[in-house]
Amino acid sequence: MRTLYHNWLSPHSRKVRIVLGEKKLAFDLEVEKTWERREGFLRLNPAGEVPVLVEANGTAISGSQVISEYLDESHPTPPLMGAGPLERAEVRRLCQWFDEKFDREVTVNLVGEKIMKRFLGLGSPDSTAIRAGKANINHHLAYIGYLVERRTWLAGDHLTLADITAAAHVSCVDYLGDVPWANFALAKDWYARIKSRPSFRSLLQDHIPGAPPPRHYQDLDF
Amino acid sequence: MRTLYHNWLSPHSRKVRIVLGEKKLAFDLEVEKTWERREGFLRLNPAGEVPVLVEANGTAISGSQVISEYLDESHPTPPLMGAGPLERAEVRRLCQWFDEKFDREVTVNLVGEKIMKRFLGLGSPDSTAIRAGKANINHHLAYIGYLVERRTWLAGDHLTLADITAAAHVSCVDYLGDVPWANFALAKDWYARIKSRPSFRSLLQDHIPGAPPPRHYQDLDF
Repeated sequence: MRTLYHNWLSPHSRKVRIVLGEKKLAFDLEVEKTWERREGFLRLNPAGEVPVLVEANGTAISGSQVISEYLDESHPTPPLMGAGPLERAEVRRLCQWFDEKFDREVTVNLVGEKIMKRFLGLGSPDSTAIRAGKANINHHLAYIGYLVERRTWLAGDHLTLADITAAAHVSCVDYLGDVPWANFALAKDWYARIKSRPSFRSLLQDHIPGAPPPRHYQDLDF
Repeated sequence: MRTLYHNWLSPHSRKVRIVLGEKKLAFDLEVEKTWERREGFLRLNPAGEVPVLVEANGTAISGSQVISEYLDESHPTPPLMGAGPLERAEVRRLCQWFDEKFDREVTVNLVGEKIMKRFLGLGSPDSTAIRAGKANINHHLAYIGYLVERRTWLAGDHLTLADITAAAHVSCVDYLGDVPWANFALAKDWYARIKSRPSFRSLLQDHIPGAPPPRHYQDLDF
C-alpha cells in the first residue's frame, strides 16, 4: 500500500489527497510533524516538507506538483493535466499561481498565523498579517470568478489539477471560516462543484482537535 | 520570432534562456522592469513576473518551469525532462529545490539585497540577510557535490532541466562573486561543465551597468 505523509491544513498535502481520490488510488495517511525534523523523514525528503508519497516498493516522491504530475503520468485516467503542450502550460501556470502566489498572499497569513503559530507555540497571531490575508483573498476569489465565467473549469472545459490546487488552498482557509463567499457567487458555485466530488469527501471530515471548523465547512450546500 | 521578457539577474529568466539555447530556438530578449507594473505586460502575465515567453503567433506563457516544460513538450530534442515518470519526478523535485529553496535561502538574500534593492532605491543591503545567504549557499554546494558524486549530472546520466535550473541560480550568485568555489571541488567541476556549453554563453556576456561581474565570472577555467 502507498503512504502519503501529510499535515492536516497543508494545502499541498490536500492537493495530493484529492488527486489520489480522483485517480481512485488507495493510500494510507500518516501525519508528519515536519517541525520535529525526524531523521527518517529527512531521508525520504531532504527538504523536510510534506507531502511525500511513498509507493509500496519504497520509492519516495516529494512535493505536491511533482507527486501530482507523477501520478498523472503513471495513472493517466482520468487525465488531470490537459491535452497538448499549451493546455498543460495553462494548467501548470494556475497550479503555480495558487501554490505560490495564493500561498504567500493568503494561506501563510491566515492558516499560518491562526493555526500553525499556535501549534508550534510561536506566540499570538499577527493581526497585520491576518488583515493582509483577508484583503488578499478577495483578489483571488475574483480571479477564480473571472476564469470560470469564461471557461467551465479554471483551465478549460474539464476539471484539471488547476482546480484541485486552487480548491485545496481555498479549503484550508474555509476551515477557518475566512472565505467571504457571499461576495463571490461565481467562485462559490465553482467551489460547490468541487466540494461535492467523492475525492473531496475525506478533506471535509478533517477535524483538528481544539480548532473545529465552522458549521458550513462540511456542508455541500453552504 | 519569439520574444522572452526577462531581467538580467533573474535566475528564472536565465533558466529559460539556457533551455532555448539547448533546444537551438531563436528568440529576442526584452528587458521588463516588472516593478513598474506595465499594463501591457500584466495582460501577458497577470502575476506580473518574468520570465514570459511570447510565441510568434502571440501566445504568451509565464513562469520558468511552465515555459521550460512547454518547450520540452513542443520541441522534444534534446530531451531535458528525463525518461519515464520516476526520472521526471526527480528532475522536477530538483527544479523545485533550486527555484524555491535555493531562491529563498540564497538568491533573495544575496542578489535581492545587493542588486535589486539598489536598483529599486529600497535602501542599503541588510547585512544579516547577506550573512545568511553566504552561510546557506554552502549547504547547497555540498548537496550538488553529493549528487554529482553519485550521478553524472544532478538528476542522472544526462543533462536535464535540474542542472539548468541549478546553474541558472548559481550563475546569478557567481556574478556577485559570492560562490565559495575553493571549498567545493565537485560542484565546481559540475558548474565548469555547464558553463562551457554554447547555451550558457550569452549569460556570461551579461553586464549590468554600474555592477560589473568579477573577472572569473566569464572565465571557463575559473
